[in-house]
Amino acid sequence: MPGVFVVLEGGEGAGKSTQCRRLADSLRFDDHDVVLTREPGGTRLGEEVREVLLGAGSQGMAARTEALLFAAARAEHAHAVIRPALARGAIVVCDRYIDSSVAYQGAGRGLGEQRIAEISGWATDDLVADLTVLLDLPVDVGLARANDGNRMEREPSGFHEQVRRSLLARAAARPTGYLVLAAQRPADQVAAQIRAAVNALLTHDGRPPVDLAPPDPA
Amino acid sequence: MPGVFVVLEGGEGAGKSTQCRRLADSLRFDDHDVVLTREPGGTRLGEEVREVLLGAGSQGMAARTEALLFAAARAEHAHAVIRPALARGAIVVCDRYIDSSVAYQGAGRGLGEQRIAEISGWATDDLVADLTVLLDLPVDVGLARANDGNRMEREPSGFHEQVRRSLLARAAARPTGYLVLAAQRPADQVAAQIRAAVNALLTHDGRPPVDLAPPDPA
Repeated sequence: MPGVFVVLEGGEGAGKSTQCRRLADSLRFDDHDVVLTREPGGTRLGEEVREVLLGAGSQGMAARTEALLFAAARAEHAHAVIRPALARGAIVVCDRYIDSSVAYQGAGRGLGEQRIAEISGWATDDLVADLTVLLDLPVDVGLARANDGNRMEREPSGFHEQVRRSLLARAAARPTGYLVLAAQRPADQVAAQIRAAVNALLTHDGRPPVDLAPPDPA
Repeated sequence: MPGVFVVLEGGEGAGKSTQCRRLADSLRFDDHDVVLTREPGGTRLGEEVREVLLGAGSQGMAARTEALLFAAARAEHAHAVIRPALARGAIVVCDRYIDSSVAYQGAGRGLGEQRIAEISGWATDDLVADLTVLLDLPVDVGLARANDGNRMEREPSGFHEQVRRSLLARAAARPTGYLVLAAQRPADQVAAQIRAAVNALLTHDGRPPVDLAPPDPA
């Protein structure tokens, strides 16, 4: 597809939402067609599912229920938002994607990372990101920063350590298409590094090359 | 588990809800502990998902989204309702279960029967019914009877023919634990046949044997 699909991943408090917004703003400033979206959510149905997942009433929900609701929201998001945007050549900037499910439900909840990856692969008909930026942060720092008040934040720190390990392992397993950044650095520096990686995906005429190599200096 | 799990399956207009209610009433009359439930639904979360799935706003939803929402509702239902009831020894009478997803999403929507069966198997941690009663009916007769006004009913008859073929094939593949009844026969006769099959599952002291063989005449 002609567009570019960029995902920001990371634990609680890593600054994903802020950096997604900054990246989208910076790309729009350069006249790119940008779709800024998030998971769970991104569609009317996805936002409904997000309410169910993160709301107070979700306490006690079975782990498999949670995993399948995330997968359902993702299926709709990929089908109704991400694929159409990529097909028209847009840059999609997405706050969380498959790796979050693998880390939170697969590793954190102990449902199995491979199984969760398979379900999300099926949900999205194997739509993978061109670039995933992992904003990595020690768990205690992240939790001290996080202030969404959602159900995930209230999990014990051991859960979040599992999540962090899983995200780092997934990045290590796929050296291309993955950028790991220390999210404790100043936000301006992090934003610049992300934008540079996205620039490397875009050729001078705005069309993406096939890998992360910098564009020709034409 | 000490309880008995009975599922009624069938296409639109087959009389599943009526026969589930009659079976539950008849078992309760004989002092059995009965849980009457349905899919999608059966839990607060499941009923919310049911609203999303069958409501007017669901038009245009991706097929995989639909399948995963059904699976999520089923995961919660198995975890929060069916397993606890079976663990305390109750008879669970459920209107639709895994075979409906295999038939409607796997066959009808073309997502693959095997794949949908796998997802539901994972969702329920492989909780299978002790007895599945398939109320079989020609598609035109069923659609003429059906009056829920839901989204499934509005699918073309070719869709419902696929559903019917899939349900019959699934029954044929599992000769034990499956009873196929002609749903055009008088409702009293159908109810009596269902109750007889359930009786065959219950020993004289109310505990289930391992298969459909009639109880010892003790």
